[in-house]
Amino acid sequence: MSRPARYDALFEPVRIGPVTAKNRFYQVPHCNGMGRAFPSSMAAMRKVKAEGGWGVVCTEQCDIHYSGNHQRELRLWDGKDIPYLAKATDLIHEHGALAGVELAHNGAHVSNLESRAVPIAPSATATRDLFPGTARAMDKSDIRAFRRWHRDAALNARRAGFDIVNVYAGHDMTLPINFLSRRRNQRTDEYGGSLENRARLLRELIEDAKEAVGDTCAVAVRFSVDELIGEKGITAKGEGHDVVEMLAELPDLWDVNISNFDNDGATARFSDEGYQEEYVKFVKSVTTKPVVGVGRFTSPDTMAAMVRNGTLDLIGAARPSIADPFLPRKIEEGRVDDIRECVGCNVCVAWDRAGAPFRCTQNPTTGEEWRRGWHPERIAVRDTADKVLIAGGGPAGLEAARALGQRGYEVILAERGRELGGRVTRESRLPGLATYGRVRDWRLRQLKSMPSVRILPGNEVDRELVLEAECSVVAVATGAVWRRDGVGRHHLAPVPDLTAMPVYTPDDIMDGRLPRGRVLIFDDDHYYMATVIAELLAKNGCEVSLATPESLLAAFTQFTAEQKRVGRRLMELCASTHALSALSRVEPGAVHLACTYTGRETVVEADAIVLVTSMLPRDALFHELQGLGQNTLAAAGVRRVVRVGDCLGPGIIAAAVHSGHLFARELDTGLSDHTPYRRENVELDWDQAMPNPAGMARGEM
Amino acid sequence: MSRPARYDALFEPVRIGPVTAKNRFYQVPHCNGMGRAFPSSMAAMRKVKAEGGWGVVCTEQCDIHYSGNHQRELRLWDGKDIPYLAKATDLIHEHGALAGVELAHNGAHVSNLESRAVPIAPSATATRDLFPGTARAMDKSDIRAFRRWHRDAALNARRAGFDIVNVYAGHDMTLPINFLSRRRNQRTDEYGGSLENRARLLRELIEDAKEAVGDTCAVAVRFSVDELIGEKGITAKGEGHDVVEMLAELPDLWDVNISNFDNDGATARFSDEGYQEEYVKFVKSVTTKPVVGVGRFTSPDTMAAMVRNGTLDLIGAARPSIADPFLPRKIEEGRVDDIRECVGCNVCVAWDRAGAPFRCTQNPTTGEEWRRGWHPERIAVRDTADKVLIAGGGPAGLEAARALGQRGYEVILAERGRELGGRVTRESRLPGLATYGRVRDWRLRQLKSMPSVRILPGNEVDRELVLEAECSVVAVATGAVWRRDGVGRHHLAPVPDLTAMPVYTPDDIMDGRLPRGRVLIFDDDHYYMATVIAELLAKNGCEVSLATPESLLAAFTQFTAEQKRVGRRLMELCASTHALSALSRVEPGAVHLACTYTGRETVVEADAIVLVTSMLPRDALFHELQGLGQNTLAAAGVRRVVRVGDCLGPGIIAAAVHSGHLFARELDTGLSDHTPYRRENVELDWDQAMPNPAGMARGEM
Repeated sequence: MSRPARYDALFEPVRIGPVTAKNRFYQVPHCNGMGRAFPSSMAAMRKVKAEGGWGVVCTEQCDIHYSGNHQRELRLWDGKDIPYLAKATDLIHEHGALAGVELAHNGAHVSNLESRAVPIAPSATATRDLFPGTARAMDKSDIRAFRRWHRDAALNARRAGFDIVNVYAGHDMTLPINFLSRRRNQRTDEYGGSLENRARLLRELIEDAKEAVGDTCAVAVRFSVDELIGEKGITAKGEGHDVVEMLAELPDLWDVNISNFDNDGATARFSDEGYQEEYVKFVKSVTTKPVVGVGRFTSPDTMAAMVRNGTLDLIGAARPSIADPFLPRKIEEGRVDDIRECVGCNVCVAWDRAGAPFRCTQNPTTGEEWRRGWHPERIAVRDTADKVLIAGGGPAGLEAARALGQRGYEVILAERGRELGGRVTRESRLPGLATYGRVRDWRLRQLKSMPSVRILPGNEVDRELVLEAECSVVAVATGAVWRRDGVGRHHLAPVPDLTAMPVYTPDDIMDGRLPRGRVLIFDDDHYYMATVIAELLAKNGCEVSLATPESLLAAFTQFTAEQKRVGRRLMELCASTHALSALSRVEPGAVHLACTYTGRETVVEADAIVLVTSMLPRDALFHELQGLGQNTLAAAGVRRVVRVGDCLGPGIIAAAVHSGHLFARELDTGLSDHTPYRRENVELDWDQAMPNPAGMARGEM
Repeated sequence: MSRPARYDALFEPVRIGPVTAKNRFYQVPHCNGMGRAFPSSMAAMRKVKAEGGWGVVCTEQCDIHYSGNHQRELRLWDGKDIPYLAKATDLIHEHGALAGVELAHNGAHVSNLESRAVPIAPSATATRDLFPGTARAMDKSDIRAFRRWHRDAALNARRAGFDIVNVYAGHDMTLPINFLSRRRNQRTDEYGGSLENRARLLRELIEDAKEAVGDTCAVAVRFSVDELIGEKGITAKGEGHDVVEMLAELPDLWDVNISNFDNDGATARFSDEGYQEEYVKFVKSVTTKPVVGVGRFTSPDTMAAMVRNGTLDLIGAARPSIADPFLPRKIEEGRVDDIRECVGCNVCVAWDRAGAPFRCTQNPTTGEEWRRGWHPERIAVRDTADKVLIAGGGPAGLEAARALGQRGYEVILAERGRELGGRVTRESRLPGLATYGRVRDWRLRQLKSMPSVRILPGNEVDRELVLEAECSVVAVATGAVWRRDGVGRHHLAPVPDLTAMPVYTPDDIMDGRLPRGRVLIFDDDHYYMATVIAELLAKNGCEVSLATPESLLAAFTQFTAEQKRVGRRLMELCASTHALSALSRVEPGAVHLACTYTGRETVVEADAIVLVTSMLPRDALFHELQGLGQNTLAAAGVRRVVRVGDCLGPGIIAAAVHSGHLFARELDTGLSDHTPYRRENVELDWDQAMPNPAGMARGEM
């Protein structure tokens, strides 16, 4: 295939100071939960992106000093950290991409849990997390020291092979942006007061970096032009504009976005592709330097338009590059239909926030590049004579069929319903979740060109079909059902008296059986399901109340960076919300809630209750087949029956896709005695030299 | 000194199966935030305890398989993990202690964020954290596999040098205790139903371990005899008793406690020394095997009584062994007054829960044993000719004076007030915080025998005193003051209209200036201060309301395992509590709160407001001295002026003590360009062999 000419502009090289990106695809820095704890995993994940055609591949933030100690992201405190980063840059360079690094000092955004250093900030302030502590105001010698650390880090970054050094003034979470902020900077010296003064540190950092490495490395600025809090903060029409104008030609590149991260990383539920354009479009009008911006771009037409209409020079991406590391190459080769589009769910963000290697709903291979040797585009050809029967066409079944088809296996995928996609199809019809359908769409498009896979909708797999299918391996991917008895995290036994009132589950709602009147939704699931049902029912005219045993509504969405928006929306649309509340009892017309601390009861009048608590696997077929015994199965040529996806352990869509992919790789989903992946281990470096205490003493005056 | 004969029983050896503990001091397994991420730090911390005289030193839990993947604690998945543990056991053995290991599989208590394996449990159940997922019910082959992993881990533990292997059935968070639990086990096979059936797995694990390593290693059981939830759970009078009776002679030792961890690890605010006795005292009546129990024991008389009255054979300790690793040796040597008593604050727990190396309010050296080479009892003798002036006798000043005195430095400690201890003295008078006074008491006892330290209460340090004191180094340890303007985590600018109502801060309360009538406490600090003030004022007859921008009351106390108790107490004693609430405006007689999500206002009638938001350093003296300039100071012989403790960065007491100790070691508290401690780094093991995929396939049927 050849690519349409309208995309040609995306493949023009772009000069960035002393270096040149081969095209306009720029993977901006993004966290991934690997960082310093999983450095080989991180490097391999970046390598795959370079291979996939990104002209620039950045790492996540590197903190540069123990006084701004983030714990999880990368670290560039001194030369000891270079080998980890050099591994990444070597791999990125192998594929002709530029490697970028983001130098960070998180100031009062962190509590230095490891180093125990008192955090530093423009002005004395409580630290930003819950840990009790106060950052101290930096004096002039602190500012000089910080500039020295930053400059040393830039030099070390060059030694590690980076081509682009980012000065990170974004997301309200680093020292230079905190100096810029009127809210956070109450200084009265030349670093406080006027915008020029507040921008002084940022200017100096750029100048220092250019002086140190600017002859061979590009010096970029990553800057948030709007904080979306109006005049209290930086705005694209106000100081955001003025900062770019003031420093316009100083850096070699402007990487611009909106702040804080909840805004920059807004999910598809709350934002559309290109949602940052209105904020960043001014930037190119005040600088001649190349500009990169993001907006969850997955459509090459949108990307080309961004270049054509003069909004951006480089198409920045974080999440779309995780969902499809080969996005640029697919456009280049005219294979636009092969793009695995980001669904904008922020599952990647969630696992990073939890301190674990991230995962992706669309791309089950990410995080597994090094430790399992998985590649997003390549997979081993079939190495057994098996023929595989898959029962169920949801996310796990579709991914299993697709990856097995890619391997060349003969596959029968039977789905009892008339439509494919299972839960992703059903959930994608709920408010705000339309993009979840992309999980199905991409797999169905891929399956079209796989002759060895037969897809049979409207066919429920039963014992007879298994025994007659002439398949040697059977994957039961029949999904899960929501519990109707209230059992979940809080209630371990069925809630009594549920017959006193009409009870609904998310399955009922997705099947179109909707309650009317006053509805209490009880959420012990804590992710999106209860909240989108609340939206749907409110839209349908119900008077909705919502109760949860957690202190926050949709508490898990803290991890997906959505909780503030979700909580606000629920509080606005619900007649009442009840945190820290369990179900006490139900009677006709009323639900009694009990405070999870005191037991005090609250009565909510309701005509119906929707229970969003937990799921049970739909695994009857699996157990029935198991019950047949090895001999009966063997006689039918069946050597193995396994559960895949929600049928094995109901969870998020990403887990189902991963389970289906694992099955396609291993023809199994069972636990092994040995760890099935390579581990990253801490070096036992008992005799490491103690730092020279004399090296420590830097007098305060 | 010689020890009183009444403590002799504590130093009798105790036979534990095939091994013998040299005395009755048993450091039970406890987490520490180091685990697999900081293995050298962990090993060195355990070594110091062995050196301090503990007869048994255990590590924290080791998870034994990737399907029960805790991420932070130790790991013993296979032989690769042995070297880390062997380092610890070697160091423990050097000092004649036995080394114990706690083998764990956390079942549905974890979500396997790293390994991505579907969690396993007795019955299908939502995982216990907020992560969306469901554990699957183990079938017979899973149980067989789990027993195999556990047996292999016991063998690997022996290879690593352990003398005691703990089967961990405690705290409602491992597979054997979850099988035992009626709430969590709904099985209908021989592993469910009757108590005998539910205890089958625990019995098998003990038998397996004894068969595998019992000839040379003791096999202990760590078991929670009461869950403190009445008949819904295990009780010491019910199934807790019956389990011990049923398995009485099977293990070589019973390590018994109460569940869940919030109960086992109750703080001094909510429990007294020996608080577990009533639950565990039955155990010795049903087994002849040695019994270890805990209860935050710091008094040798209480310990001796526990042995004498037949409650315990071994004095278990976690927190007291952190506060004073040398506790046994001090008793042995008759130096009871030297014991650094645990204050029961759970700061250790908090940092472990945060995934960082733990710290201790009383013992600033813990967590620093390896990385900085700090020892809780020894410190380098003076190596400069400095004479040190310390301004302020709070926790930082006292610890600095004590450690400098131990080094042999001449020190003048001047305290403006007539009493010493600063904030710990003031805070220890608030409800529930009496033990905080131990921070002062231990240091004052130690200082008594230090002739080179002069303590001058009633002397405020000013410029003149500094210039006349003939001290070369000045440490300003003048503490901090609570802000009176509402600024904290939520409000970055002063709250308007505060003149409309009497405003109090924690300093006022501790000074005895108390409000009357209806009082609103605004808590943006989130630790204990607002909550103990609420208790005090309610006791004094005020009608107390409490508001906080967080979703939970005293949200940080989640980390100290106190939040459930604190929250319940507040809800019971307050007229009203308001989560997710900021200050909108104040008028005579009323405070207007604004929902942090919607801005909706709530009006609370109040005669006074107490602002518990954040602290500012009391650093005027430091800045005044800095303003004198180097020449003036040098002329007076002063070569350095530094801030220490809250004066540098207001925080928790543990941070102040650590800061004072750091100052005593380094004569400085400034930031250095180079990291002042040894780091633990992940090995860059790019070419590690990929696990054999064939090794993975363990068919499900």
